[in-house]
Amino acid sequence: MSTLDRDKLLNTLISQTANKSVISFTAGFPDEEFFLAHQLQEAYKKVLREPNSLQYATDFKGFYPLRENIKQRLTKKQIYATEDEILLTTGSSQAIDLTARIYLKAGDTVFVENPTYQEAIRLFAWLGVKVIPIQSDKDGIMLEDFVQNIQTYQPKMVYVNPIFSNPTGKVWSLDRKKDFLALCHQYNVLILEDDPYSDLAFQNPESIPSIFSLEKNYETSLVIYISTFSKIIAPALRIGFAVARPSLLEPLVEGKALSDLQSSTLNQRAVSQLLTTFDLDAHLKKMVNHYQAKVNLMTTYLAKELGDQLHWSDPEGGIYLWIELPQKMNPQSLLTQSIQEGIVYLPGDLFYVDNPDVNAIRFNFTFPSEEKIIEGMKRFVQAYQHCK
Amino acid sequence: MSTLDRDKLLNTLISQTANKSVISFTAGFPDEEFFLAHQLQEAYKKVLREPNSLQYATDFKGFYPLRENIKQRLTKKQIYATEDEILLTTGSSQAIDLTARIYLKAGDTVFVENPTYQEAIRLFAWLGVKVIPIQSDKDGIMLEDFVQNIQTYQPKMVYVNPIFSNPTGKVWSLDRKKDFLALCHQYNVLILEDDPYSDLAFQNPESIPSIFSLEKNYETSLVIYISTFSKIIAPALRIGFAVARPSLLEPLVEGKALSDLQSSTLNQRAVSQLLTTFDLDAHLKKMVNHYQAKVNLMTTYLAKELGDQLHWSDPEGGIYLWIELPQKMNPQSLLTQSIQEGIVYLPGDLFYVDNPDVNAIRFNFTFPSEEKIIEGMKRFVQAYQHCK
Repeated sequence: MSTLDRDKLLNTLISQTANKSVISFTAGFPDEEFFLAHQLQEAYKKVLREPNSLQYATDFKGFYPLRENIKQRLTKKQIYATEDEILLTTGSSQAIDLTARIYLKAGDTVFVENPTYQEAIRLFAWLGVKVIPIQSDKDGIMLEDFVQNIQTYQPKMVYVNPIFSNPTGKVWSLDRKKDFLALCHQYNVLILEDDPYSDLAFQNPESIPSIFSLEKNYETSLVIYISTFSKIIAPALRIGFAVARPSLLEPLVEGKALSDLQSSTLNQRAVSQLLTTFDLDAHLKKMVNHYQAKVNLMTTYLAKELGDQLHWSDPEGGIYLWIELPQKMNPQSLLTQSIQEGIVYLPGDLFYVDNPDVNAIRFNFTFPSEEKIIEGMKRFVQAYQHCK
Repeated sequence: MSTLDRDKLLNTLISQTANKSVISFTAGFPDEEFFLAHQLQEAYKKVLREPNSLQYATDFKGFYPLRENIKQRLTKKQIYATEDEILLTTGSSQAIDLTARIYLKAGDTVFVENPTYQEAIRLFAWLGVKVIPIQSDKDGIMLEDFVQNIQTYQPKMVYVNPIFSNPTGKVWSLDRKKDFLALCHQYNVLILEDDPYSDLAFQNPESIPSIFSLEKNYETSLVIYISTFSKIIAPALRIGFAVARPSLLEPLVEGKALSDLQSSTLNQRAVSQLLTTFDLDAHLKKMVNHYQAKVNLMTTYLAKELGDQLHWSDPEGGIYLWIELPQKMNPQSLLTQSIQEGIVYLPGDLFYVDNPDVNAIRFNFTFPSEEKIIEGMKRFVQAYQHCK
């Protein structure tokens, strides 16, 4: 698929989310039931009483108390960074863009796990950066392929999403993370570690180490770690962040100030207020239980109806279910028929830089209600039976 | 001054704004008294009741009803654009960055009025774009210098701020705007028109035409018009916008989606709610009256104390007073002494790409209270007398 066709298809499918008669499993939207609207009402009311909450900020890293909150939250994940090593951004999207703008020039090479987050592929391509896919298995990026490609392309950076990867939902094994990190040091490749989903582990969210947390010597760390509040509080607040040692972070801080001066510190204040007065982790426990129940609903139905024909990931967290179709199934026909039946998901090839090695599709399981999930899966099975 | 020195000095001076013992006339901050915190409390309370106000948006141009509000407001300025010709951004800063990323490559040339908004100079330089200053007089960019430089440099774009220009506060004459526009068409130079201040005219804010409004044939328009709610509602909301004909705007929309997905639609909803229920123009009338009183306080005091030694602009709106020092006055000594006396402003050379032709300094007159203005001017005069 050409980049243009891919972009058009993606936009067309995602925009179906706004269509009430279609059940959408496309985008990575959280469940609106868990948005803490009431608590945020209180938080905005409170922070809007502070005299300078609506003024420009002079601290270009973002609202300091929120960086304190983030620092505290990160220690539970064995990430030890000071407030000064945290930059607040407009979602983690902006952190990817800033990192790419600072550390890659047009013509440079970036590696990505194949498959990976489609917007990252589009962004790198838009920036004129050469995107080289590295094959992956259930444990993460495949190291032989990684090393071989390093020797051919001398990449500046590698973009990875090792915890509940988009789109497959996999978690890299600990050994793979360690060996990957060692190789990045050996060949001096910067790591952009995108971690939007680790708080959404069905069990013990704090037990899965990030690559950042495995760096032994912080002084020579090669990892820029990015995450977001979009999946755990609410996307419309647009609060993401980047964490890195000062010499890696400072150019991002400068770039952030030049590119949009600052993100909304009003929103940053409201979230800081929320985190200070509300037990987010207890709330997240309820939320991920609900998410787990939702994906179970999907896989139980699939097992009953198509258990002998499909394979799917068995997510232990995150927001995506990855379903492998039989090789003989025509993915275009299945998508067309599904839309006709009134459901939509994303075709797997959107997440590949080159031709996919599997015939797969991605379902988000957090956005639709349980009722819509039941109806949506019914429609999907109908479409599947029609195309078989 | 080297770019690095300039950046350091600028950051040092602006950061003084947070220092309580120093009276700051540096940054372009609005008066916090006019921030509508109470109305915004109501607005957030209301919009947070809407079920999807915290969700991702699927409309990448930004919240549609706010674009309707903007469209309405723009008609009063003889700018007739549809909602689809408006893109919401993170402040107008992001609109400058996006326009530069889309329409300029590293090595391309951009023209700027000399002097101009210092952050635009820094951004263009950061992007690797060659920045050529065009001399200006009281009526705007000087056209002979403009044409001569066009022939030498073949610029892709020219960045201007014709209404209450930063830093001088001048308004380009109508004839100059028209002739400038005609030349841009003759030589096919894109115009990035930055208009953050036109709502802050002391008299008849709707009577000063933008260059955008002078375009006769919209189909061939060369103007990307950008503005912001930062100066008229509140900066921390981070809501700016770009207006252009579809073929000029669409690449910005795509770039915006790739670079940070979307700005905070929660804030966009709150501002739309405010504009629908509150008479912003009546409020602005009070605000600009107050701003006018503030700058009068400054110029009256200056006239009394240093009327025979200084020249200053006579602002009819905006937020800056531009003061020309005698050529023999050492600007570094004056700044050092002023800081020692407990006031800070910005030295004029920060706003020049090359060496300034005048010995000038910029005072913001909207941020300090009247009490602080009185005390601040007293301290400035003391510093001045000391350095004379």
